[in-house]
Amino acid sequence: MDYKTLAANVKADSFKMAALPRQIRDSALNAIIDDLTANKEAIFAANAKDLEKAAADALPAPIQNRLKFDEHKLNDCISGIKDLIAMEDPLFQELLKRQLDEGLTLIKTTCPIGVIGVIFESRPDALVQISSLCIKSGNCAILKGGSEAGNTNRILFDIIYKAGTTAGLPQSFALLIEDRAGIDELLKCHESVDLIIPRGSNQFVSYIMANSKIPVMGHADGVCHVYVDKDADLEKAVPIVIDSKTQYVAACNAAETLLVNRSIASQFLPRLAEASGASIEYRGDETVCSLIGCKAADDQDFETEYLDYILSIKVVDNADEAIDHINRYGSHHTDCIVTENSDTAARFMANVDSAGVYQNCSTRFADGFRYGFGAEVGISTGKLHARGPVGLDGLVTYKYKLFGSGQIVSDYAGGVRSFHFKDLK
Amino acid sequence: MDYKTLAANVKADSFKMAALPRQIRDSALNAIIDDLTANKEAIFAANAKDLEKAAADALPAPIQNRLKFDEHKLNDCISGIKDLIAMEDPLFQELLKRQLDEGLTLIKTTCPIGVIGVIFESRPDALVQISSLCIKSGNCAILKGGSEAGNTNRILFDIIYKAGTTAGLPQSFALLIEDRAGIDELLKCHESVDLIIPRGSNQFVSYIMANSKIPVMGHADGVCHVYVDKDADLEKAVPIVIDSKTQYVAACNAAETLLVNRSIASQFLPRLAEASGASIEYRGDETVCSLIGCKAADDQDFETEYLDYILSIKVVDNADEAIDHINRYGSHHTDCIVTENSDTAARFMANVDSAGVYQNCSTRFADGFRYGFGAEVGISTGKLHARGPVGLDGLVTYKYKLFGSGQIVSDYAGGVRSFHFKDLK
Repeated sequence: MDYKTLAANVKADSFKMAALPRQIRDSALNAIIDDLTANKEAIFAANAKDLEKAAADALPAPIQNRLKFDEHKLNDCISGIKDLIAMEDPLFQELLKRQLDEGLTLIKTTCPIGVIGVIFESRPDALVQISSLCIKSGNCAILKGGSEAGNTNRILFDIIYKAGTTAGLPQSFALLIEDRAGIDELLKCHESVDLIIPRGSNQFVSYIMANSKIPVMGHADGVCHVYVDKDADLEKAVPIVIDSKTQYVAACNAAETLLVNRSIASQFLPRLAEASGASIEYRGDETVCSLIGCKAADDQDFETEYLDYILSIKVVDNADEAIDHINRYGSHHTDCIVTENSDTAARFMANVDSAGVYQNCSTRFADGFRYGFGAEVGISTGKLHARGPVGLDGLVTYKYKLFGSGQIVSDYAGGVRSFHFKDLK
Repeated sequence: MDYKTLAANVKADSFKMAALPRQIRDSALNAIIDDLTANKEAIFAANAKDLEKAAADALPAPIQNRLKFDEHKLNDCISGIKDLIAMEDPLFQELLKRQLDEGLTLIKTTCPIGVIGVIFESRPDALVQISSLCIKSGNCAILKGGSEAGNTNRILFDIIYKAGTTAGLPQSFALLIEDRAGIDELLKCHESVDLIIPRGSNQFVSYIMANSKIPVMGHADGVCHVYVDKDADLEKAVPIVIDSKTQYVAACNAAETLLVNRSIASQFLPRLAEASGASIEYRGDETVCSLIGCKAADDQDFETEYLDYILSIKVVDNADEAIDHINRYGSHHTDCIVTENSDTAARFMANVDSAGVYQNCSTRFADGFRYGFGAEVGISTGKLHARGPVGLDGLVTYKYKLFGSGQIVSDYAGGVRSFHFKDLK
């Protein structure tokens, strides 16, 4: 079967999936825990094949590391699924209940989005997390993982698929794409796929966004800032800047630019440079260069997501200049102000147009787990539907149910009847 | 100035607009009421020019009618703005407040989307409604109205702009586009415009959707259904079908297809045909034709939004066949079941994937005013962000504020500290 037909089958089953009660979705998640546990040796064996191939292909060490699916990763996955089972059902929540007139009641209720296509990197645990989030939220999933993890992904998918359908999920509740060409086929399925969540390099995400009519949730760039204000506690500022930059340089929430208030620049920058030593390469404007003797930064630097141990630095006259810089050069991901002045922090947080606006903590906190969402399907820098780390909440939408007893609009248009709008909850 | 520069100015002011307190936005709305009232004769004079030109151009009567902006329309607009002022502030609402750890608090708070481009039909009152909704929700607006209403739109916009800026809204909080070419320029401004809401013909909305990288909220098609179940009260079914079809045939929420359960078809269809007389042209399948002697419907009919006094009819064996038909042929707008059986209604409402799922009332209720939203900027058949009639709620998004006291991620990654996730509200 071609992908268009396969995706249409998933779409058809998404309507059934949307109507399933919590009990069936949770029992599917329980069955997945059982079957993952029962089949763990086979999973580890499949993973060993992927690891062998990765070693033979001399893939970089961080990739080989992410590829590993061992007892520890399995336990993390299982504990994540248990958390999901315990969570409140994101479906069938009444967001509004309003009597429009006697015997005419409107209920706004949460429901799944439908069919979600997720394209993810070479971490096999991502397949388990994403599938579980989709099951809990009543969505059907079309999954494409990194090819390096092909054997592990296949066995994990087979286990999840069998456990899910046995527990009562519809036959096409999930689909695994195993070839790279399948991604382009998926991008064409706008009649069947409601949302695509791509995870991966900026270039890859931009490619997806440019090549599909399907709405895309995610982020292409992560140019995050730390602004050290004139009222900053420099004891806090130094570790916050270093953590934001270096705790994991390849992450989208790592800081790429430091903005420093002119009045504290000569105190702060040498302290920062001393604390970081040679671990960070700085690129600064004229003032910065004169203070810490670094490379000169050009305009291009302030637009760059280095994903490396490099930090651009600019001196600004005040918080407003920092806000303007961030709104102009940033990617609306996560930006932090270091200040003890709560008025300045409030102005920064109200005016900076980003999914995350922080005071006195590292930008690296922008993450579904660290927000207490249990897990995330991705981080969105779009402003519609879901913003920032996207957990269960971002995987649901709503519909309006209207319960009547024969009402017609011409009675209301003609003045025979009128609305009385009484909120029932 | 070119539109790109103008739109960039609006974008820059959108950050200021987002930070304005309710009191300034509400006082702007109050000032608009005062100034509309004080300048009403000039408004009516401008409208008279548009009406004269429309008459000279022999525009269709319904368009001439919608073009009219008289004392009655003005009062409707003013009462709509008063309702908005009285409504709760959609901004700065705390959706979540969670302590992640001691001294590290996450707040998810509503904020405006930013810059919204609205392209609307020839009703000058739409300009007032849309501007007011955007002001209340802290969004900047780029407006393009129907050219037939050019004089009226210009004076209404000037009044709103002057009242708004005098009350403290930023200089570029709103922009009026007056030439058709400006629409194509607007579609290119994806760096400055966050959302486009097009209202108008299907063809026009499809054009917008196909020609911009900016997210579009709206609907291209409105193929709505009424399904008359075997357990329907036929006393209710007849007026519901007639009202859904004829109360305003040009509306997107008018029914285009009737589905009838086979077991009651021979009772119901002749009653419907008798009640409607010649006012509705029916196109049916074989059974329907044999019962009421109408034209034959082909597959094309079931995909067509007639926007006319024409109704396609299909006989189905049961509710599940009706659900499948609606999910396949419908446009996910609004669909109704007529039944006294609440189990069947629940199944229909859970399985039909539409923004509005109704029991025993006309599809014509799908409207922001009738839902008690005060006004709407449009109706969305998309599944992300906002669905169905879109009022103030659909014009806001959220951001995450994180208040720390020096926390860095490496302490949590290294096991020095751990999260405790305590919801504070």
